[in-house]
Amino acid sequence: MKIFKKAILPKGFKANGLACGIKRSGKLDLALFCSQVNAKASCLFTTNSMLAAPLKLAKAYLKKNKDFGAIIVNSGNANCFTGNAGLKDAEVTAEALAKELGIKKESVLVSSTGIIARRLPVEKIKKAIPGLVSDLSEKGIDKAKLAILTTDLFVKEITVKFSVGNRLITICGVAKGAGMIAPNMATMLAYIFTDADIAQNALDKALSLCVKDSFNCITVDGCMSTNDTVAMLANGCAGNSRIELHNNFNLFVKALNIVCLELAKSIVKDAEGKTKFIEISVSGAKSSNEAKIAALSVANSNLFKTAVFGENRNFGRIIAAVGSCGLGIKEEEIKVKVSSLKKKEVKVDILLMRGKANATVYTADLTLEYIKINAEYN
Amino acid sequence: MKIFKKAILPKGFKANGLACGIKRSGKLDLALFCSQVNAKASCLFTTNSMLAAPLKLAKAYLKKNKDFGAIIVNSGNANCFTGNAGLKDAEVTAEALAKELGIKKESVLVSSTGIIARRLPVEKIKKAIPGLVSDLSEKGIDKAKLAILTTDLFVKEITVKFSVGNRLITICGVAKGAGMIAPNMATMLAYIFTDADIAQNALDKALSLCVKDSFNCITVDGCMSTNDTVAMLANGCAGNSRIELHNNFNLFVKALNIVCLELAKSIVKDAEGKTKFIEISVSGAKSSNEAKIAALSVANSNLFKTAVFGENRNFGRIIAAVGSCGLGIKEEEIKVKVSSLKKKEVKVDILLMRGKANATVYTADLTLEYIKINAEYN
Repeated sequence: MKIFKKAILPKGFKANGLACGIKRSGKLDLALFCSQVNAKASCLFTTNSMLAAPLKLAKAYLKKNKDFGAIIVNSGNANCFTGNAGLKDAEVTAEALAKELGIKKESVLVSSTGIIARRLPVEKIKKAIPGLVSDLSEKGIDKAKLAILTTDLFVKEITVKFSVGNRLITICGVAKGAGMIAPNMATMLAYIFTDADIAQNALDKALSLCVKDSFNCITVDGCMSTNDTVAMLANGCAGNSRIELHNNFNLFVKALNIVCLELAKSIVKDAEGKTKFIEISVSGAKSSNEAKIAALSVANSNLFKTAVFGENRNFGRIIAAVGSCGLGIKEEEIKVKVSSLKKKEVKVDILLMRGKANATVYTADLTLEYIKINAEYN
Repeated sequence: MKIFKKAILPKGFKANGLACGIKRSGKLDLALFCSQVNAKASCLFTTNSMLAAPLKLAKAYLKKNKDFGAIIVNSGNANCFTGNAGLKDAEVTAEALAKELGIKKESVLVSSTGIIARRLPVEKIKKAIPGLVSDLSEKGIDKAKLAILTTDLFVKEITVKFSVGNRLITICGVAKGAGMIAPNMATMLAYIFTDADIAQNALDKALSLCVKDSFNCITVDGCMSTNDTVAMLANGCAGNSRIELHNNFNLFVKALNIVCLELAKSIVKDAEGKTKFIEISVSGAKSSNEAKIAALSVANSNLFKTAVFGENRNFGRIIAAVGSCGLGIKEEEIKVKVSSLKKKEVKVDILLMRGKANATVYTADLTLEYIKINAEYN
């Protein structure tokens, strides 16, 4: 299994990115990812009930078919809290792209990220689509990965290559997010591409397993976005013997896990105002779910996060956060170990004496810079 | 009904406060509140499972009897996460005070606030008890209300007087808390005294009703303390015809509500680093519980609170917070109105189109000063 800290598109995929004028800064704001053949899609969305329009559309399309040919993403506008007009805007985007690519609109995934409660400038997107499509290339991933960003300070990308039989399989992922949240409430998007031939149920199961321990284990401030999306396309171009639940599934999960975890950690490392990357591991819990609840309770405690920022070993704040998580954990059931706070990466180990399960979550400290970024944005 | 923004002890109560040496600053750190006759007690404690030692002791005593004669409070040390030794320290405190007052130890409520996971210097407390008792007086409330404070910038106090028949009843409350949380994780304590003659079940019901809409409706950062306590004593010295659930109960609740709400709001007004006091009202909900969940979700959103600090009208952050609260509220069910952010008091009105219930919660903004206070404390 080879790991590359760079996005390298798998066989049969092309991409592109450009500036269509949504961002006033003139930065890239429209990305397109295409598979030359229809690919199996597996998608996971935010559980926020104020679902953004493109997510409503994607859910409707996914009910009709699971074969997708393209993902189009705009940054700078979330197309959320925009009512029926916003839903129509997302649909118009899908239709325009489908027409240009010669595929059906239900095979297009539309994705948006940026400010909430503002109409999407859909005419700008329609106008840009022909150029976006005509310049598609393998190298275009380098523009696409930039065009999905908002306040991110760096690109999140990774590629893993491994063999199934004598065929080389590639899984490539790109993501955006400055720590679950961003000044525009833009938050987290991840797109993962593979040329593996894999059964739909195996793809769905692999993605949900990997997301559970990666994107669902990161938090910056507990604020849940309206647009969070993890979308994966598998186009089968590697020509491998089909991966099934009973055939090379664990190998595929292992590779996908590397991709998801690296992207998730990268998002936390780009958290707004962050000075420390914090890993919180809980072991000895009754279940991995219990371990995760306890770990997230600490990871979302403002008191704990400011203490880490101040390099202040205030042990009581960890205890109080675990005690408040609703699991009834008692003081005689817990031991806490914290690494040096002087370093850039901080490790918190919480040992419970309740069982054998464990979980790890990732977060950042809460800093003066975080307040400045989020207070001063307008 | 007369309201005094000052603590005036009801008939039959005395108090005192002194510095026994727990706080290195030399400030007052030991308070005593006494009733000359045994009083009915009603107490509510934090739901944090890492219960501080004095709360464990109080719960055990309250199982044996509901008649209390005294409340002793130390500030500067929470006596939490201190194991059996800490529990013993709390018991020794109760025993020493009971002996000095000539009452049984189960009639003493011990309360602590301050840093977690440090042994209580119980010898200092024992040594101070004789002097604390000998100087008890009605005026002593002015020292007691100072001795319960930690990082508070001001005293929280109120008195309400009203008549039942031809008897004047007084309810007096004092509290501490710099917004649910404090650098030492010291958080919220409130002590309420009345000379009303009131049945135990009416007292319990009145207190839980009033706490639900006051102390349980405030948040600064969602961090739940290990020591939170609201303790009320009713000694019957006013000589009124006994208040029962069917006799003058609503009048009593009305007066107690004024006391609880004023103390709760004062805590938020003293929130660490605060520049704005924020009132969030949700109406049109299916139940008052639903309204409160939605309102607290906004009140605990770091993104919303930094936006208020920055006077940044980022409407989407309120929508996203309501959408994340787990109630499945959809965008077509919500309208939001926000008052001017330029003022010191900000009002957020959230209208849901789901029912007729409402709730109001109180919070403060999240500021640079909050981070400094909590990061730099050591």
